Amino acid sequence: MTVTLADIQAAARRIEGVAVKTPLLSSLELDRRTGGQVFIKPENLQHIGAFKFRGAYNRLSQLNDVQRQVGVVAFSSGNHAQGVALAARMLGMPATIVMPEDAPSIKIAGTRSLGAQIRLYNRRQESREQIAGQIAADSGQIIVPAFDDPDIIAGQGTCGLELIAQMQERGGPPDLVICPVGGGGLIAGLSTVVKELVPAAQVCGVEPESFDDHARSLSSGQRQQNTGSATSICDSLMAPMPGELTWSINSRSVDRFVTVSDRQVEQAIAFAFRYLKLVVEPGGAVALAALLQGGLTTPGRRIGLVLSGGNVDPELFCRCLDRNPEP
Amino acid sequence: MTVTLADIQAAARRIEGVAVKTPLLSSLELDRRTGGQVFIKPENLQHIGAFKFRGAYNRLSQLNDVQRQVGVVAFSSGNHAQGVALAARMLGMPATIVMPEDAPSIKIAGTRSLGAQIRLYNRRQESREQIAGQIAADSGQIIVPAFDDPDIIAGQGTCGLELIAQMQERGGPPDLVICPVGGGGLIAGLSTVVKELVPAAQVCGVEPESFDDHARSLSSGQRQQNTGSATSICDSLMAPMPGELTWSINSRSVDRFVTVSDRQVEQAIAFAFRYLKLVVEPGGAVALAALLQGGLTTPGRRIGLVLSGGNVDPELFCRCLDRNPEP
Repeated sequence: MTVTLADIQAAARRIEGVAVKTPLLSSLELDRRTGGQVFIKPENLQHIGAFKFRGAYNRLSQLNDVQRQVGVVAFSSGNHAQGVALAARMLGMPATIVMPEDAPSIKIAGTRSLGAQIRLYNRRQESREQIAGQIAADSGQIIVPAFDDPDIIAGQGTCGLELIAQMQERGGPPDLVICPVGGGGLIAGLSTVVKELVPAAQVCGVEPESFDDHARSLSSGQRQQNTGSATSICDSLMAPMPGELTWSINSRSVDRFVTVSDRQVEQAIAFAFRYLKLVVEPGGAVALAALLQGGLTTPGRRIGLVLSGGNVDPELFCRCLDRNPEP
Repeated sequence: MTVTLADIQAAARRIEGVAVKTPLLSSLELDRRTGGQVFIKPENLQHIGAFKFRGAYNRLSQLNDVQRQVGVVAFSSGNHAQGVALAARMLGMPATIVMPEDAPSIKIAGTRSLGAQIRLYNRRQESREQIAGQIAADSGQIIVPAFDDPDIIAGQGTCGLELIAQMQERGGPPDLVICPVGGGGLIAGLSTVVKELVPAAQVCGVEPESFDDHARSLSSGQRQQNTGSATSICDSLMAPMPGELTWSINSRSVDRFVTVSDRQVEQAIAFAFRYLKLVVEPGGAVALAALLQGGLTTPGRRIGLVLSGGNVDPELFCRCLDRNPEP
């Protein structure tokens, strides 16, 4: 099983006029600092403030009438939760979301306001897979995985289709595309598009340094896990290990994984506030953080940069601004 | 003297490929609250974080070689300052900016980083017109007014041309356009475009309640001043009275002026953070504040909404978020 460009193009037709076609932005300051031309794909401007709606709608819109009556169940720290909740509401089906108690309150409130039923769990003592599995068994609701699913990956890949087309309209294809990595669904779709349409372009995935499972997996040639005790401010990038399907794609189509520290992510959030005028959440800002820290080769290159989400609690956001007066 | 649609179209050709063509955004939450369809023109995503670059570049790009060598002088609390500074740098000419000492530090720093020479003055004890006049007399630099100038107005009007064209691409023209008002330059250009291209559409200007000079001017039929002691968090909308040229346009082409309180502006900033994922400054958020407060007729209407800038100090921004946990 894999995901093809044709699958992603079919997903693009399904979400057309439903998902936001996010714009392509640029910044004189970012170009100055990198010496390149950076084209920003702001998925924080997508419905529910993150790219996750793309995959959720692509998956849910393919359910049949009987399945739609029973609805879906998903587990997520917040953005997939909201994506599924909104897609379910649009398609008129019930949704149950299993969320950790310590998810950002903006994400819990957002999911609830979209009409989903919420089941909170304790991240250290309970298994979200088990809870969701039980709900599915009891109710007949279909489990919608957050990333390890071909329809989810194809949906997220539509972000890449738009990015390439929008960059072509602005003078040509990318030399490099940089993208946040959690479970690997977004970058699996994105890198599939890039390698098909612009084979010469490099794709770079960015992880929090304490959740560097993709970087270690690529080095070792085997899927690696994160330690259970790892912490990060990037709540949306805390998947325990690369997905099976996502990794079968990413191990071939992603050229490189780099990591950033929480400190660098905080600075990137403050940079986006000051220079981009965008609200970006920690997990959504890792690729920007990697770009700002200067470890990538950027001068003279055309760079596609994905900001994947913007659902951040005000307290954390303001702490980032306070700690980085000159980002 | 006036400004015509043809002047604005000529300005659009001058700024093409130089200014940002800002995108058109929408928000399910804003549509839900208003019962209408709101199309957001986010000029906080323009170069220097505000629409002011449009007018400044349109004006400066028309100077001849001799004038360019001597350069320009402008006075501004910050956004016009940065717009002139960036346009001058792009066109290779010197710029002097007269700014109040109490301007937001992000705006002073931004202007300085663009290479302009800065002359700070005390808002209560000195006259910025006098200081700028003296600089112009001594140096031969040309004064670039912040709003009361046909080329400045025509440049700002390009925002309106884009708005109408982008709304047409999304299903049709606006029924209502809402726009922040300080000196009246932006809304003069915008309303000229709207009344020419979509005569049936209404244009509504929004002011801080303590700087309601346009509202009172329209009621009385005469240009009215603001009191010298008035205060507002909307630093970019504190012009003492409507401009002569801008008012000769706005008194005919703007249907209505409404006002909003600082409290409502703070809520709008928090709303934009949470639901739009955009950083908007107080003066840039007044039209959104008017929309959220519910005093305008919105159900079933197509509404163009201008967010005019995003240059806000972190302290003020975070105070808005803190005071409005459920915006």
